Amino acid sequence: MNKTVEFFFDFGSPTSYLAWTQLPQIAAAAGAEIVWRPMLLGGVFKATGNQSPVSIPAKGRYMLQDLARFATRYGVPLAFNPHFPINTLTLMRGAAGYLGTPQFASYVQAMFEALWVQQKNLGKAEVVAEVLVAAGLDVAEFERLVSDEAVKERLKETTEEAIKRGVFGAPSFFVDNQLHFGQDRLDFVAEALQK
Amino acid sequence: MNKTVEFFFDFGSPTSYLAWTQLPQIAAAAGAEIVWRPMLLGGVFKATGNQSPVSIPAKGRYMLQDLARFATRYGVPLAFNPHFPINTLTLMRGAAGYLGTPQFASYVQAMFEALWVQQKNLGKAEVVAEVLVAAGLDVAEFERLVSDEAVKERLKETTEEAIKRGVFGAPSFFVDNQLHFGQDRLDFVAEALQK
Repeated sequence: MNKTVEFFFDFGSPTSYLAWTQLPQIAAAAGAEIVWRPMLLGGVFKATGNQSPVSIPAKGRYMLQDLARFATRYGVPLAFNPHFPINTLTLMRGAAGYLGTPQFASYVQAMFEALWVQQKNLGKAEVVAEVLVAAGLDVAEFERLVSDEAVKERLKETTEEAIKRGVFGAPSFFVDNQLHFGQDRLDFVAEALQK
Repeated sequence: MNKTVEFFFDFGSPTSYLAWTQLPQIAAAAGAEIVWRPMLLGGVFKATGNQSPVSIPAKGRYMLQDLARFATRYGVPLAFNPHFPINTLTLMRGAAGYLGTPQFASYVQAMFEALWVQQKNLGKAEVVAEVLVAAGLDVAEFERLVSDEAVKERLKETTEEAIKRGVFGAPSFFVDNQLHFGQDRLDFVAEALQK
């Protein structure tokens, strides 16, 4: 039986974006499967008392440099979103809605890149719609999904499960039910997958 | 002219301890010099609004695992101090006092190991005295140093300089006046020293 890595993420987190650019290769190299776990980071922060690094101004200024250094190391584009922080409730409901469907990968890519490469203001429904169309996704289908009570409940349950299992931020990974926090711990995730 | 790496640290920080176990080899490999910058982390937290990760319970629990993982990777002992957090004002005044003297290296080693290997309660003056004696240091000299107004002022000035330059936690490093935060960024410090 192959190993799995659970990936708890929120589109609003730039380090979740960085992790998303790296995790597929790491999992593939280990012959491991990614279990995608969209969660609402705002709910995690509220429940744990944690907050975004940018709430401490000096930490926020440093974080911009730190993100740029990792983007350079990984060789991926990253442009900090000027509309940050964006309320990601609807966007994460979308992820919970597409989960397990053929559209999931396109949706996740479209949202991460719109936020952290194209610097789009995804707080605006019309901008989200443009991004969906550009990714070949159906806006009416998206709107149906994000209003679906079962989808809303799925996101809520995943967020609650994350909190229960010790998650306090994003991205968070579990390998063998052991928590690894942050895209800067992907080397430990890779090691755990190789064990 | 050789490169330098400024190392801002506080004995009360377990990640400063981990950095202290690794930085000498990293600096030596790059032919670089360590500029030791003892500071008061409590002062940095107060000025920046930052706080210890343990103030968020879920983060504190994870931090214990994270520290243990890095200690294993580095092959160094680490035992989380049950008396944490300890007020390090006197201990850091000691570091500022010994700075530039032949006793500095022994003092720093004794304090880091007492806190993060031997789990001593360095909040108690008599325990500090025992540790000093075991390290071959003179207790009367230590007491003179930590009461010296010039030493107190040196620690205060270094802490204020750190804050002014963007430091919000410990350990912090500067290479070419660029800030790197955290023992988990030592690979970036090494890269910056090799440039």
